[in-house]
Amino acid sequence: MTSALLTDRYELTMLEAGLRDGTALRDSVFEVFTRRLPPGRRYGIVAGTGRFLDELRRFRFGEQELEWLASERVVDSATIDWLADYRFSGDIWGYREGEAFFPNSPILVVESSFAEAVLLETLALSVFNYDSAVASAAARMVSAADGRPLAEMGSRRTGERSAVAAARAAYIAGFGATSNLEAGRSYGIPTMGTAAHAFTLLYDSEEAAFRAQVDALGSGTTLLVDTYDIEKAVETAVMVAGPELGCVRIDSGDLPQLVAAVRAQLDSLGATGTKITVTNDLDEFTIAALRAAPVDSYGVGTSVVTGSGHPAASMVFKLVAHKNADGAWVSVGKKSAEKATVGGRKFPVRSRRAGVAAEEIIRVDDQTVRASERTLLVPLVTGGEIDDRYTGTSGVALAREHREAAIGELPASAFSLGRGEAAIPTRFE
Amino acid sequence: MTSALLTDRYELTMLEAGLRDGTALRDSVFEVFTRRLPPGRRYGIVAGTGRFLDELRRFRFGEQELEWLASERVVDSATIDWLADYRFSGDIWGYREGEAFFPNSPILVVESSFAEAVLLETLALSVFNYDSAVASAAARMVSAADGRPLAEMGSRRTGERSAVAAARAAYIAGFGATSNLEAGRSYGIPTMGTAAHAFTLLYDSEEAAFRAQVDALGSGTTLLVDTYDIEKAVETAVMVAGPELGCVRIDSGDLPQLVAAVRAQLDSLGATGTKITVTNDLDEFTIAALRAAPVDSYGVGTSVVTGSGHPAASMVFKLVAHKNADGAWVSVGKKSAEKATVGGRKFPVRSRRAGVAAEEIIRVDDQTVRASERTLLVPLVTGGEIDDRYTGTSGVALAREHREAAIGELPASAFSLGRGEAAIPTRFE
Repeated sequence: MTSALLTDRYELTMLEAGLRDGTALRDSVFEVFTRRLPPGRRYGIVAGTGRFLDELRRFRFGEQELEWLASERVVDSATIDWLADYRFSGDIWGYREGEAFFPNSPILVVESSFAEAVLLETLALSVFNYDSAVASAAARMVSAADGRPLAEMGSRRTGERSAVAAARAAYIAGFGATSNLEAGRSYGIPTMGTAAHAFTLLYDSEEAAFRAQVDALGSGTTLLVDTYDIEKAVETAVMVAGPELGCVRIDSGDLPQLVAAVRAQLDSLGATGTKITVTNDLDEFTIAALRAAPVDSYGVGTSVVTGSGHPAASMVFKLVAHKNADGAWVSVGKKSAEKATVGGRKFPVRSRRAGVAAEEIIRVDDQTVRASERTLLVPLVTGGEIDDRYTGTSGVALAREHREAAIGELPASAFSLGRGEAAIPTRFE
Repeated sequence: MTSALLTDRYELTMLEAGLRDGTALRDSVFEVFTRRLPPGRRYGIVAGTGRFLDELRRFRFGEQELEWLASERVVDSATIDWLADYRFSGDIWGYREGEAFFPNSPILVVESSFAEAVLLETLALSVFNYDSAVASAAARMVSAADGRPLAEMGSRRTGERSAVAAARAAYIAGFGATSNLEAGRSYGIPTMGTAAHAFTLLYDSEEAAFRAQVDALGSGTTLLVDTYDIEKAVETAVMVAGPELGCVRIDSGDLPQLVAAVRAQLDSLGATGTKITVTNDLDEFTIAALRAAPVDSYGVGTSVVTGSGHPAASMVFKLVAHKNADGAWVSVGKKSAEKATVGGRKFPVRSRRAGVAAEEIIRVDDQTVRASERTLLVPLVTGGEIDDRYTGTSGVALAREHREAAIGELPASAFSLGRGEAAIPTRFE
């Protein structure tokens, strides 16, 4: 399935106008960055890179697309001919997927003709804005959970294809599993899930439902205990499954109190090894509030797939440099007060003191990297060739690994859930 | 492309456990509804119906899906065999797409075996939660715009496939166009868009960029005037295109003031017919704040595709009735305080006084419709056969038409942007 029409019409209109006089063929550099983090956020996590590269491979205008564009007169016939041959042939660098980002971090740098690059704006931003919003929220939940495992189960709360992307982004950010089967198949993410309230309601009694589930899935399964009365359900669950019951799930009520009561009840029934998982509309704040409670794991839905209040990462795709008529590079940027852009090709590094991230230094047209600094851009596409290590299942595994290293380097202030600025300052140099 | 794995693992686990003892074959009724509207919202707009039906048609477990499920031991081999033959063969009723909904409105009713219906939970909720969130926000923007046209241009701020769904939902809710080309192709929605700041920055001068655009697209085009200095840009725009310039677009700054100044300048240059469109991070509140300004149209991005603060419509998919072992129908519902469900098959009607909606009456197991009432459920799927009128381009056109009628019937209080309750009360009967 082509991704070429997942594109705003104005990208094609600019192409047409710029091809007509040849200006669209000028070498250009576009960068993807956000001007600011959402209020209170100390860092963001880059996600979407592997998906963007996969979609880039499918970014082709086939017969059907070209016919539709022609019949709708979206662009003229010269532009249609140009699109028929379109293959991105330039270079793309980016932050590693899973990397931490800050205001103005150039997480993607696209160098090619204006024509080839401008067509990718919509697709790149759709992918990075959604995936990075999810990963950035998910990373906060992971640190709030303080080592307890988290499962992503928000598919029912976001578009059906975004659900797969969300599962992937949450996993990169440190979640341990997802409920989404397609995410399991496409990216090798562990899947989990046992039963909803409907299952208990379908049977003539809660006991019959628990018995059916244990018969099918064994006593190591997770029984949902809040359909009717929790205390009674826990009693029934242990009676049916025995003290080797794997886990009970609580999906409603005042969790800190309930969890403590259920733990005490399980222990008194001899089910000291039975775990407790909670899933009631959790976000990073309610997860943090459960730190003192005997919870064993969390299932997170709505808040993670909607970026916990910030469903788009505010990434923009901006032209920062192009060659002029004489072939010389010119730095460019919009001048308006609130949306000004710093022109010129950026070379970002993260400086460190004693192994702790200290500054995001963005050098303009200057590739210096000092000893205490870590360079942040890696080549993703070279002369149109996509580096496959960053796509598919291997890309997800690499990203998850890199996120752990990148997060491990941040100062302790990065993990505060209170108000505050970015964990490290961004400085242009 | 199959939609069958866009599914939470627990749907399949419940299926396996319920097939083992045959209970999953019990006739069942599931309903989709939301317990509450977001704070301040007076109504919601149903969207997603046509997309859900299209995905339902593709909900098939093919060889590849079955092999993956088997290799991952997601379910046992008896369940794999059952899934291989899966075709939804039951009945589905729903609110017409474009219909207004209120707390507890049963916007979808699925009747079939538990096994056939439970598999559809994730897909149905993914589609209705996202699409209805967008349509509900979009409808408020449409009434805030008070007759001035709106274009959806948020593709860059949501997942790349959700972007197509968002364009569709906004169009159903009364937007006039979208920037998204795939939405134009798939659903016959008018597409629009001319140029971004990058185009102006690519050229050696703003004048050269405007000239290139006018040469390619004619003087009826829309020129973006806020890359450098707005006043100078408006002067250049009229100089290049003449007073027959179609439109200028402003994407930054303090809009009420700016728009008035640009209007005065255009008029003084003789460009009295040149329109002004604004696109700077608009939502229903900033659109309403521009009512007194000489704006001709609005382009809305982030806020519409993210549901203006509420990116998921809080829809749930609940078992409300099933047959018991004796073949008698039993009403069921979860009992927990904050998430209680009213059991029994619902027959909702909208009562009206003098043509104005007065109450959402939800009759339980009672199909009465009085003279002043309008029945709300229509058959969408009958014995597995999908009613094609509600899918594709025709479905979108019907939904847009129905939304106009449904909105036209609401009391004036529905259009307030202030705090307040649902425009009409919901009453179970």
